[in-house]
Amino acid sequence: MSLQRVLVYGGCGALGSTCVKFFKNKSWWVGSIDTKANDEADKNFIVNVADPWLEQEATLSSAISSALGNNKFDAIICVAGGWAGGNAASEDFLKNSDLMWKQSVWSSCIAASLSNKFLKEGGFLTLTGANAALKGTPGMIGYGMAKAAVHHLTKSLASENSGLPDKAQVVSILPVTLDTPMNRKWMPKADTSTWTPLEFIAELLYKWITVPGERPPNGSLASLITKDNQSKYVVE
Amino acid sequence: MSLQRVLVYGGCGALGSTCVKFFKNKSWWVGSIDTKANDEADKNFIVNVADPWLEQEATLSSAISSALGNNKFDAIICVAGGWAGGNAASEDFLKNSDLMWKQSVWSSCIAASLSNKFLKEGGFLTLTGANAALKGTPGMIGYGMAKAAVHHLTKSLASENSGLPDKAQVVSILPVTLDTPMNRKWMPKADTSTWTPLEFIAELLYKWITVPGERPPNGSLASLITKDNQSKYVVE
Repeated sequence: MSLQRVLVYGGCGALGSTCVKFFKNKSWWVGSIDTKANDEADKNFIVNVADPWLEQEATLSSAISSALGNNKFDAIICVAGGWAGGNAASEDFLKNSDLMWKQSVWSSCIAASLSNKFLKEGGFLTLTGANAALKGTPGMIGYGMAKAAVHHLTKSLASENSGLPDKAQVVSILPVTLDTPMNRKWMPKADTSTWTPLEFIAELLYKWITVPGERPPNGSLASLITKDNQSKYVVE
Repeated sequence: MSLQRVLVYGGCGALGSTCVKFFKNKSWWVGSIDTKANDEADKNFIVNVADPWLEQEATLSSAISSALGNNKFDAIICVAGGWAGGNAASEDFLKNSDLMWKQSVWSSCIAASLSNKFLKEGGFLTLTGANAALKGTPGMIGYGMAKAAVHHLTKSLASENSGLPDKAQVVSILPVTLDTPMNRKWMPKADTSTWTPLEFIAELLYKWITVPGERPPNGSLASLITKDNQSKYVVE
């Protein structure tokens, strides 16, 4: 069996580095996109988030093309993102909306563009939405708008003539709360029995990628629901 | 009865200038935001779309504050926007996605921020989404994402503690195709019996603004459906 390849966008984040480690343990070739290098990855593609959107894509595209040669990715996992709050009365409303757009939508669209160029036929792309953004999010308007845009991108990419390779599929994961060190630090008194472990997600993505019959339908928004420390995904 | 005031964001566009004219005919005080002046408006607020997002809002906010004094708007109508296509394979995918974000989301969020500051208690804000964006839009991914974000903004603003004034309401109109001179020019052979006349929309908005009982529920996405030259709105 030939070497399998995955690209993790956000490979230094809590979820991204868990994915890098998981796929390395499965002996995959792993590329990581982030602002810094993940030493566990086979190849790092460094992105300067201060660069304009098109320049970020062009830089990554060129570096990935050189690294891959004639190979392509079996899967691209985009778990880049961030969080910031604010309603329409907040002083930071527009500033945070701008940041959320860049962190979630720029990365997701670049992942879509890279999928057009470097994903195999029949390959698998995953993006990261948010369960909260299935409804209005008055206390974090910019975050909700950006995640709603990612949900819509997922639907568009799953439609005919979206620009994804033939028979490629796309699914978004919609976390509620991830069990990350940062969330543990900032919410020390929270009930963590409803938080989704990162390892569960890495394993879930691995299953979807390697066993097409296990995948939710193309274009699904898969909410990650954890209750009493038991995690599952739920498609609307 | 005291003078009533409306602010039209995009007051020089086809739909915006129809709204300016309609409200002037009803003897309202009309402010227009656009890149140039609409001579029918009582007051023009000029926006430089090359300015950064926060600067656009700050400039408008300051000019509107001076113009209004202690008065506030009964309604704010945001009909700014634009259209550009492209799937994930398109050379212009990111460029057009960026443009769509700025034209639709920047304007809608600035309208939300101005509503926080200058809309009366119980006032009415309307935004402009797109019927097409209720589903995936593979041939115009950036447009769909931006309009999906506006739909989400509508839901957020209609929720508790969104930053809108007390008892204020927000509804988005979701056009299919508007009967504008530009659409007639570029689609000369199209069946215009399914296009929505601009006058219908101006009259509809006027009714919603002046007769609260006629409004669809707060946070509605009101698709504008025209068939056999008969127009109506449909809330999902």
